[in-house]
Amino acid sequence: MPVSLSPYALRQQIRQGSFTGNTSGYCAGYVQGNLAILPKAFADEFLMFCQLNPKPCPIIGMSANPGEFMLPDLGQDIDIRRDIPRYRIYEDGKLTSEVTDVVEYWQDDMVAFLLGCSFSFEEALIADGLEIRNITEQVNVPMYRTNIACKSAGRFSGTTVVSMRPMKPADAIRAIQICSRFPSVHGAPLHFGDPAAIGISDINHPDFGDAVTINEGEVPVFWACGVTPQVAIESARPPICITHSPGHMLVTDLPNSRLAIL
Amino acid sequence: MPVSLSPYALRQQIRQGSFTGNTSGYCAGYVQGNLAILPKAFADEFLMFCQLNPKPCPIIGMSANPGEFMLPDLGQDIDIRRDIPRYRIYEDGKLTSEVTDVVEYWQDDMVAFLLGCSFSFEEALIADGLEIRNITEQVNVPMYRTNIACKSAGRFSGTTVVSMRPMKPADAIRAIQICSRFPSVHGAPLHFGDPAAIGISDINHPDFGDAVTINEGEVPVFWACGVTPQVAIESARPPICITHSPGHMLVTDLPNSRLAIL
Repeated sequence: MPVSLSPYALRQQIRQGSFTGNTSGYCAGYVQGNLAILPKAFADEFLMFCQLNPKPCPIIGMSANPGEFMLPDLGQDIDIRRDIPRYRIYEDGKLTSEVTDVVEYWQDDMVAFLLGCSFSFEEALIADGLEIRNITEQVNVPMYRTNIACKSAGRFSGTTVVSMRPMKPADAIRAIQICSRFPSVHGAPLHFGDPAAIGISDINHPDFGDAVTINEGEVPVFWACGVTPQVAIESARPPICITHSPGHMLVTDLPNSRLAIL
Repeated sequence: MPVSLSPYALRQQIRQGSFTGNTSGYCAGYVQGNLAILPKAFADEFLMFCQLNPKPCPIIGMSANPGEFMLPDLGQDIDIRRDIPRYRIYEDGKLTSEVTDVVEYWQDDMVAFLLGCSFSFEEALIADGLEIRNITEQVNVPMYRTNIACKSAGRFSGTTVVSMRPMKPADAIRAIQICSRFPSVHGAPLHFGDPAAIGISDINHPDFGDAVTINEGEVPVFWACGVTPQVAIESARPPICITHSPGHMLVTDLPNSRLAIL
């Protein structure tokens, strides 16, 4: 894997169609973002939804105006229609196709949102010597629907989806300290311990992603997850919505350390 | 209770003998400190013990030189021999008397150490809206011996004593964030959840202090405790050691906020 590839160089490969894969593990040290593109009538309400629910929906960048597909604040020459390896098209809340660029779907009233992703805080945890079980076991992080209500904004509403990483309590305390520095990539965990306390009935059967091993002496630690806005968008049923395909993110020029508040 | 009494005014009452009580709840907003006075031959090793074990033994002030009983860095005109309401005298590791000043015990080779105390972080937690169970139930905080070894320094060694406050997980996460700002008053918790994981066999029978109620949905949260150095001193058996009497602290002129690193 060409770990020394710059974010700009990777985006150029993506734009040219020579890179169409998962971005996990590429451009270590740089922020990767979740994408949501909505027409303006829905975008205004979605912006408020994110503002009201910053832990699951941390905005790290958006179109300066409706129709604007260049995102200079996130990196050099970023064209959000072409610089993500794989996109999903939702019509009336249903997935209808998966494509490698969205130039033909772009409309003059569209607004692109980039939301922080857990890759950034996982990198900070690993740098501190903590183990991330889903990475060790080479599976997707387990994610669960909870009974923690989001604040509603217009047609956007729902409950919080969480990701889970098992840890020994002392490591969980350290993880809470580290993640508190990164509010724009979900911040500190929402909960640890008893899954039922937040409405999770079976920790071994996640609603999204894969189950991971929880060892003796470990507790499950739960973070607000970027799947939360996706679920809210599906229930809002906009006529069209474009997202990244899971794991196929926008790789920005922002160093992860830029997201640290301290 | 004269809550508006300044630390200096309270210390003057203490020095004159008109105040000999518990300092808990007095001079809200100001740092209170645990006292340990040792002869130089033991003080050098104790200083190293504190340096090696900063979570249970956070030094906030000490004599500038052996024999120095004035502590100007901690407040106006502080004479550590007279400005604490009640002292305990230990000889060869055994408690031999309790007195209201220690002028007659003071020796030219003595070194006074002031260690941070949980009052400072409890105040920050309460200010944030969290409940401190031992305060609600008007008892001493429960404290437990653990199997977490301290690093040894000369004759000083032992295991960590912890204090425990039960909380819901979301409140515990907030408490970890707040206490992380206060490393010189024990800092973030050491552990939460299963007491047996740190060698506590019965959470309902603390080794020091009083048991408190742990409600459904709460987990015990454990902080390093200032009783740790007391236990280490007892086992080191110095010929003489002077401490404050529990709850009868040095009230300094330092605002609690001064101890925050962030």
